[in-house]
Amino acid sequence: MGRWEPNARERLAKAALELYSERGYEQTTVAEIAKRAGLTERTYFRHYADKREVLFDGSGALQELFVNAVAEAPESAAPIDAVAAGLEAVGTVFVDRREHSLRRQAVIVANAELQERELIKLSSLSAALADALRRRGVSEPAASLTAEAGVAVFKVGFERWTADPEDRTLARAMRESLAELKAVTAGG
Amino acid sequence: MGRWEPNARERLAKAALELYSERGYEQTTVAEIAKRAGLTERTYFRHYADKREVLFDGSGALQELFVNAVAEAPESAAPIDAVAAGLEAVGTVFVDRREHSLRRQAVIVANAELQERELIKLSSLSAALADALRRRGVSEPAASLTAEAGVAVFKVGFERWTADPEDRTLARAMRESLAELKAVTAGG
Repeated sequence: MGRWEPNARERLAKAALELYSERGYEQTTVAEIAKRAGLTERTYFRHYADKREVLFDGSGALQELFVNAVAEAPESAAPIDAVAAGLEAVGTVFVDRREHSLRRQAVIVANAELQERELIKLSSLSAALADALRRRGVSEPAASLTAEAGVAVFKVGFERWTADPEDRTLARAMRESLAELKAVTAGG
Repeated sequence: MGRWEPNARERLAKAALELYSERGYEQTTVAEIAKRAGLTERTYFRHYADKREVLFDGSGALQELFVNAVAEAPESAAPIDAVAAGLEAVGTVFVDRREHSLRRQAVIVANAELQERELIKLSSLSAALADALRRRGVSEPAASLTAEAGVAVFKVGFERWTADPEDRTLARAMRESLAELKAVTAGG
């Protein structure tokens, strides 16, 4: 087996999610993931530090995308509208990813350690969004509260999207979730 | 030393926080905490399972207080107003606790493991609030979003209160934080 494997990273991620779904996260070994992907353990560890990381591979890119869209929103945009632009950007990358997201969500919900990791990622996203808003000149506590509101909308919108039998897009689920947050905070 | 020690629980919590502040959380042992409190390690473990738990002793009671106030808000209250009643209730128990909260916050911020635990507690609070709102007849996603908004206000309000050199009360910091969330989500 050569050192370079086409799409090794994606094949490993796919194999891991399949096995975690079939057998459970705890019951799956890295050796089994590598085997399912037709690769070696050595190759696995060239791409991922551990069993957990393979599930969170996309979260750095997602945070960057979200934060960049907030930073690049028109100067005149209100903080919540800059966050809405970030949610739109995130919505665009999950087209055709609903099945995958649904499975990933099910694996995470079933394991406390994975849930913790997910909470840490969301907390890091909130901090990064608050930073981006402060760089836009938004003062505290507005920056932190808008960032928290954005993460709440993202979290609830994402859950609704994965759970929804209708085929609405993630972008639409995010928009609906934001509209609902606006309605509830307005006392509606 | 007798089996019953007056205020053992409180003395241990006080000693732990002092030592964590002075020497750092990692560098402090249960033996040292017990000694500082004038008690034995055995007594420590009768009250707390580990080094971490002593810092999170109040969070169950806090969640109960918050959730009960939401449940008992007037039937006619909008979801966000029920959550506001919960925030008010929480505000009342932290009178004269600012110094303590400030020290606790500093210990938690310095340690990744403690931050994770704090995130888990906040996530559990959010789930419990959403439950309480659904029992009030609030549908989804409004219940989850209002709960998330309440936790965001609690978190940011709490941080502002501990960091604030002025002596405003926690209840006031919560009210200001909620008003600010309403303003930012309204696009202000």
